[in-house]
Amino acid sequence: MKKANKKSNAAIIIIGNEVLSGRTQDVNVTNISLWLNKLGVKLEEVRIIPDSEKSIVQTVNQIRKKFTYVFTTGGIGPTHDDITSKSISKALKVKYCYHPEAYKILQNYYEKGKFNLGRKKMAKTPKSASLIYNPSSAAPGFFIKNVYCLPGVPSILKSMLGGLNNKIIGGKKIINKTLSLKTVESEISVSLAKVQKKYKNVEIGSYPFFKQGKLGVSLVLRSDNSKLIEKSKKEIINFIKKKKIKIIMSN
Amino acid sequence: MKKANKKSNAAIIIIGNEVLSGRTQDVNVTNISLWLNKLGVKLEEVRIIPDSEKSIVQTVNQIRKKFTYVFTTGGIGPTHDDITSKSISKALKVKYCYHPEAYKILQNYYEKGKFNLGRKKMAKTPKSASLIYNPSSAAPGFFIKNVYCLPGVPSILKSMLGGLNNKIIGGKKIINKTLSLKTVESEISVSLAKVQKKYKNVEIGSYPFFKQGKLGVSLVLRSDNSKLIEKSKKEIINFIKKKKIKIIMSN
Repeated sequence: MKKANKKSNAAIIIIGNEVLSGRTQDVNVTNISLWLNKLGVKLEEVRIIPDSEKSIVQTVNQIRKKFTYVFTTGGIGPTHDDITSKSISKALKVKYCYHPEAYKILQNYYEKGKFNLGRKKMAKTPKSASLIYNPSSAAPGFFIKNVYCLPGVPSILKSMLGGLNNKIIGGKKIINKTLSLKTVESEISVSLAKVQKKYKNVEIGSYPFFKQGKLGVSLVLRSDNSKLIEKSKKEIINFIKKKKIKIIMSN
Repeated sequence: MKKANKKSNAAIIIIGNEVLSGRTQDVNVTNISLWLNKLGVKLEEVRIIPDSEKSIVQTVNQIRKKFTYVFTTGGIGPTHDDITSKSISKALKVKYCYHPEAYKILQNYYEKGKFNLGRKKMAKTPKSASLIYNPSSAAPGFFIKNVYCLPGVPSILKSMLGGLNNKIIGGKKIINKTLSLKTVESEISVSLAKVQKKYKNVEIGSYPFFKQGKLGVSLVLRSDNSKLIEKSKKEIINFIKKKKIKIIMSN
């Protein structure tokens, strides 16, 4: 049974030289964040760190005390640069060993004689970790305490998130409303700041855009309180009308 | 005159609720990283943090001591959620005030009577900061000590990087070689680990891919020493041939 927790928040640790080197464009932050929004968990920090045991141990131990949930991505495959499981074991001071259920899953998945050393490595987790099942390619992720370890390949990661829905205890769903205006930020900044000051529980973001020759500003109102969003949005629309600024889109 | 510095490294701080909320897909990390590679500076950490003064002050002060260069993106526009300049001033304990040159640039850019309060805010920097010129939309970034503050809009950010080329003192250019193989990671993991162990100064990354129905692994060899890259690549090709694995691409 899930219990609402108002202060449920999360951080992501992207473990990946390939992201730091610019070779790979990360998309896991966006995917995990959108999934967390639906569960009422606010993503409050992301760190992208190298495939280094020292970095992983330090970062995990700093981060896990500050947030309700910590997600790691990457480094749980069969190669030498996959050191997440081992490093998390070290961070949490538990043994790094074969997980009996993971071992069975992988043994069944591969043909006889094909369950080699590299593949066996994917059955190792910190002792007493629970598995996060992988409907795409068998090799599971795992979680231990508040640390949830997922793979780096976005399609596989996405396929595994659903299985975690009943493990994550979120608060009220976070709602977004967007108001796109035909203006520039500096025309509305003073009035907008007044509305933000009045509605402290609504996070009002202002994002200029230049798309297909069109110039504008998207205002994003974000809160778990829909009434406050509507009230603050109304006040914004009032000053927008006075300024004779055109509304391009409102949801 | 630039002087090569072997240990030149960098970190990026993405200041942006819009990235944490999943609304905006960050691409600035990739763009800055690819630019730093050419200058011989290795990106070693990224943090994505909220538009909060406390977070910015804490993160900047933690990070700037650990890395040669720190880049921040976002939060230097005219609206209430643009608090980077003010927060960096606080972090470095310097006054937050109008930068005379930035003020002039913006005053000239806007028509008479249009240089309003929001726009004037964009002329404020930490005292004694130097400007990073903006060829796209006038409002400059700035740097002070080893902290370089850039805007969040990717096209504007990219247009500003060139102006920093002679400010960043890098080491030897970091070289990437890729070898794409028709195999799966677990078929090569043991042999690959041996090559990595032998060539500690070459960072060997292994990345599985599933593209357009094709399954394979890309090996990325990364170092500032091209001879070591070639040597380690040769050893990989040797064991690949013995295993009768097909090379899809090699550069």
